[in-house]
Amino acid sequence: MKLLLLSNSTNAGEPYLGWTKPFISDFLKRNSITEVLFVPYAGVNLSQESLTKSYAVYEEKVALVFKDWDVKLKSIHHFNDPNEAVINAKCIAVGGGNTFHLVAEMHRTGIMRSIRERVLEGIPFMGWSAGANVACPSLRTTNDMPIIQPASFDCLNLIPFQINPHYLDANPVGHGGETRQQRIEEFLSINREIKIAGLREASLIEVENESISLKGYKPLRLFQYGKEPIEIEQGSDLSFLM
Amino acid sequence: MKLLLLSNSTNAGEPYLGWTKPFISDFLKRNSITEVLFVPYAGVNLSQESLTKSYAVYEEKVALVFKDWDVKLKSIHHFNDPNEAVINAKCIAVGGGNTFHLVAEMHRTGIMRSIRERVLEGIPFMGWSAGANVACPSLRTTNDMPIIQPASFDCLNLIPFQINPHYLDANPVGHGGETRQQRIEEFLSINREIKIAGLREASLIEVENESISLKGYKPLRLFQYGKEPIEIEQGSDLSFLM
Repeated sequence: MKLLLLSNSTNAGEPYLGWTKPFISDFLKRNSITEVLFVPYAGVNLSQESLTKSYAVYEEKVALVFKDWDVKLKSIHHFNDPNEAVINAKCIAVGGGNTFHLVAEMHRTGIMRSIRERVLEGIPFMGWSAGANVACPSLRTTNDMPIIQPASFDCLNLIPFQINPHYLDANPVGHGGETRQQRIEEFLSINREIKIAGLREASLIEVENESISLKGYKPLRLFQYGKEPIEIEQGSDLSFLM
Repeated sequence: MKLLLLSNSTNAGEPYLGWTKPFISDFLKRNSITEVLFVPYAGVNLSQESLTKSYAVYEEKVALVFKDWDVKLKSIHHFNDPNEAVINAKCIAVGGGNTFHLVAEMHRTGIMRSIRERVLEGIPFMGWSAGANVACPSLRTTNDMPIIQPASFDCLNLIPFQINPHYLDANPVGHGGETRQQRIEEFLSINREIKIAGLREASLIEVENESISLKGYKPLRLFQYGKEPIEIEQGSDLSFLM
């Protein structure tokens, strides 16, 4: 088995895949790889009009890096039969991004099983971030909260929007992972009809029959698909959310 | 419908539930509440020997705050039939912590449905952080990555441990949410047999048949149930992980 599992694609302030280059290049050369099948399903980008477009942009960005090594990289979303693409692949690379979307698509298409079989047969596999996570036993990423698989994602559905608790504008210094706003944008790009209330610490929402109000000490940041986020102050009418 | 949905329990450096007190107190008084049924399922604490103990410690911490208002708070884990407890409840409070564990237990016990029914009938509901999330349509918290419900959490299972990519020791300044190490401890407390490799940015794991090595520029932090985390330097033998 040949695996290259990278923590992240890019260090803060460096070029895309910058720090990884000596390691990926060595891995490709050692295994005489000239073509790579790329799995872009973790790439969920709100700025693109569709997932196909989002995958194409992701593929182009990664292919540009691999071109320097004379390695041809092609994304699996071009193939009508993704499992056939896996069966014919010489090497597989899985890009980072949203692990849940990646795993959902790998199960939906069936490549979770076919990739495993090919890698156990010996073809080289590389993945960064979410792409490294899928080499593990399960989606319980240990980064966030999915320590257990619930029977369903459905909740009480008492209010029709999602709350983002502990909403925070910034990222820790020197952290190259997604900001909270980026995660929310990923959410919106595949859940376009649902609004998100970014509820900062020391603030709350109170619902009393038809009345809904923002209380506490900080404005709420409202996210909706296709619109700029807006700041809502205490005392504003929130009834449009219900 | 009467909801009180709070972003967080505690601001950094303040007492437990400190900032929330005027809001919860007002909500309880306005609705003449003298007893509260508490849902502790988000409380997954590695330092406790069992979930029941973890729930009891959580209950005690919250009950102490409610005692100041002469309100009796009892946790649902004491009841043989949790749905009967919900049917008899005068008010429900759901505490924060791990949303996935909370939602998994709410589905397993059936209280996801019975609480919804009671709240639609008019009993007051309050929740903070994960407890506010469960009032929403689904577990897609928007905080982390669960933007979609995959068919299964199972992944490729090429290596027998979980990778924590972008592993980071610190939390953003002034953020009262769980640190990454705390999330990993939650994971270990219900998945005791699985090891976790905290892979810092600019580091990677390479597997070549029986050989497994740490490469890149930073040590790995290994987490195992019942042991102190250890730092592993480049060049160390990692074969005990396979």
